[in-house]
Amino acid sequence: MTSFYTLLHKDARTRARRGVIHTSHGDIQSPFFMPVGTRATVKTLSQEDLHAMGAQVELSNTYHLFLRPGLEIIGAAGGLHNFMSWQKPILTDSGGYQVFSLTNWRKITDEGVEFQSHLDGTKHFLTPERVMDIQGVLGSDMVMPLDECSPYPCSQEDAAAAVRRTTLWLKRTHAHFHAAGMHTRGQRLFAIVQGSVYRDLRERSARELTAIDTDGCAIGGVSVGEPVKEMFEVLGWTVDLLPEHKPRYFMGIGMPDQIVKAVGMGIDMFDTVVPTRYGRYGTCFTDKGTVVIRNGQYKADFSPLDPACDCHACTNYSRAYIRHLFNAGEVLGLRLAAYHNVHYYVKLMRRIREAIDAGCYADFQEDFLVRYGSPLAHREG
Amino acid sequence: MTSFYTLLHKDARTRARRGVIHTSHGDIQSPFFMPVGTRATVKTLSQEDLHAMGAQVELSNTYHLFLRPGLEIIGAAGGLHNFMSWQKPILTDSGGYQVFSLTNWRKITDEGVEFQSHLDGTKHFLTPERVMDIQGVLGSDMVMPLDECSPYPCSQEDAAAAVRRTTLWLKRTHAHFHAAGMHTRGQRLFAIVQGSVYRDLRERSARELTAIDTDGCAIGGVSVGEPVKEMFEVLGWTVDLLPEHKPRYFMGIGMPDQIVKAVGMGIDMFDTVVPTRYGRYGTCFTDKGTVVIRNGQYKADFSPLDPACDCHACTNYSRAYIRHLFNAGEVLGLRLAAYHNVHYYVKLMRRIREAIDAGCYADFQEDFLVRYGSPLAHREG
Repeated sequence: MTSFYTLLHKDARTRARRGVIHTSHGDIQSPFFMPVGTRATVKTLSQEDLHAMGAQVELSNTYHLFLRPGLEIIGAAGGLHNFMSWQKPILTDSGGYQVFSLTNWRKITDEGVEFQSHLDGTKHFLTPERVMDIQGVLGSDMVMPLDECSPYPCSQEDAAAAVRRTTLWLKRTHAHFHAAGMHTRGQRLFAIVQGSVYRDLRERSARELTAIDTDGCAIGGVSVGEPVKEMFEVLGWTVDLLPEHKPRYFMGIGMPDQIVKAVGMGIDMFDTVVPTRYGRYGTCFTDKGTVVIRNGQYKADFSPLDPACDCHACTNYSRAYIRHLFNAGEVLGLRLAAYHNVHYYVKLMRRIREAIDAGCYADFQEDFLVRYGSPLAHREG
Repeated sequence: MTSFYTLLHKDARTRARRGVIHTSHGDIQSPFFMPVGTRATVKTLSQEDLHAMGAQVELSNTYHLFLRPGLEIIGAAGGLHNFMSWQKPILTDSGGYQVFSLTNWRKITDEGVEFQSHLDGTKHFLTPERVMDIQGVLGSDMVMPLDECSPYPCSQEDAAAAVRRTTLWLKRTHAHFHAAGMHTRGQRLFAIVQGSVYRDLRERSARELTAIDTDGCAIGGVSVGEPVKEMFEVLGWTVDLLPEHKPRYFMGIGMPDQIVKAVGMGIDMFDTVVPTRYGRYGTCFTDKGTVVIRNGQYKADFSPLDPACDCHACTNYSRAYIRHLFNAGEVLGLRLAAYHNVHYYVKLMRRIREAIDAGCYADFQEDFLVRYGSPLAHREG
């Protein structure tokens, strides 16, 4: 079997890495961004849109798909790739984050988590093993284990309990993943480091989890409300404890400048709903910061959303037209803004890879953060 | 100057006609369907979508665009084609229908109609001349005059008053249209026959209006709530009174079987929100009738919306997936259903033209109406 991850090149002046992930649905050049299709669709976009903008992989969500449309239907379709007509790689999140967000509707024990559906109140019980079985039916290329994601803020005691349980669950996950033969069907398993904002807990979690032979490592329990400074501290403590020969996934991050920064710290994989969610509210990303398209200043501005962009929305439509669509509540407005934003993220990752390939990532990062007006500019890279 | 309409071929066994409309934004093969982009966008679709499915022309609405984004902005863009990035022909409705729908918010005199905006309550006064000036700024290829559209039901007295005023207004419209030089800038003017469901009034309106030298003739005040049988009676009385060398537009019609029937009675042009509106509610058109995609019978149906269709939605996605998108409230569902429906209408018109070209429209019509399960089947064609 081919190895899962090939490290192509390490940047000399930063910790940025160029690599390739190999899956049975094709290779993924890293670092990369995964557009988020929680319910088997990236909001307002089609899978053809994602192809056209060069997205390499799509992320979907085990919890949401388990509840609707349900495993029976996705199983009958022959898995999630067929169901949603996306034959490139898919990563599925475990649903741990979603279940733990249902604060009043779930009960956690070491055995697993009982919860009530946010859709119809029906009760379900998820265990580490069950979460693997579900993702086995989904057939995702990269599967995430059930973990306990600490909220923010979180006491050290609670965070420690979550770390203990996350390790316990990963051991069971790993055993079941292999016993069920998921690895032989081309699926790949990640670990998810927890530990909230406590350095010793992050280190303990990373140490315990990397002792288990997974295919990749994720840093979870970040971007849950903590200040950006603390988020990057967590990243700094954790990333060096992760093995070099496995891909590193910083879950749920982030704004463009945060991604540029995290790549420079050694991260390979990103996902966030930011480009689609901001797009739906009419906030569009450019290298010079955001354009809030509803603003009156754009009412007779016939330039593109982002003059530096070559996407479908920027090539064909003006700010004035897109603003009109938003004011009139027309779906095409949401779609064009979301299209531009996801394209912006996908293209940013391509620019990042090119900068690493060219050996100039330190300069790229510095230039980008300054031009973006980022508060992350001029810090240690 | 080229003539506006070329009659290519008259069907031997029905009254169907093949023709070409010539505009400064290109030719339009008739009979044809105009997707409705009331507010400068065909709901959920992009202009590239319309290109991809072969739409020849788009319809937009003077009243809505006048109120939002307003003439200043569309004028600054250089007209509606540029504003919405659609360089093919555009027809704009006058807004008469919309204004007369504001039953409690408008006051009609022979001079014009005063109304309050449905958006912000501001008062406006539209005259036949003003409606031309607005469409002059929009730059639409085909412009519709201000008319008085009778509701249904309507007394014979009220319908007669509307016929009188519609003729009065078309005379002023025609004079202003030419005085303002709109014809020399490539714009073309239609007349709109009124008269409700009264044969003598329809005949009077057609006689009075065709005495004025417009470029095309529309039948208005139909599909406003009257039974389908009466709608086709109105068409039958009116169509033969319209000149053969001008295109004939049956406004706001209709369901696929109604279009097939109306073509057989000599109509060239159609517009309706049916494909987009039905699509947004999950009802999809096929030659065998409609598919209501939310129905439970489709939950594990992995065939396309319409197995006979080659559109983007039917080529790529299954009924089960689109049903899931509707159940989850995802925009892609609306978009795929609307895309299929508009594609279905556009392709239906192409099939209609091919049948007329091949001299077999009577058979096509009969086959279509039977297969569709239409109540219009087996009546006089």
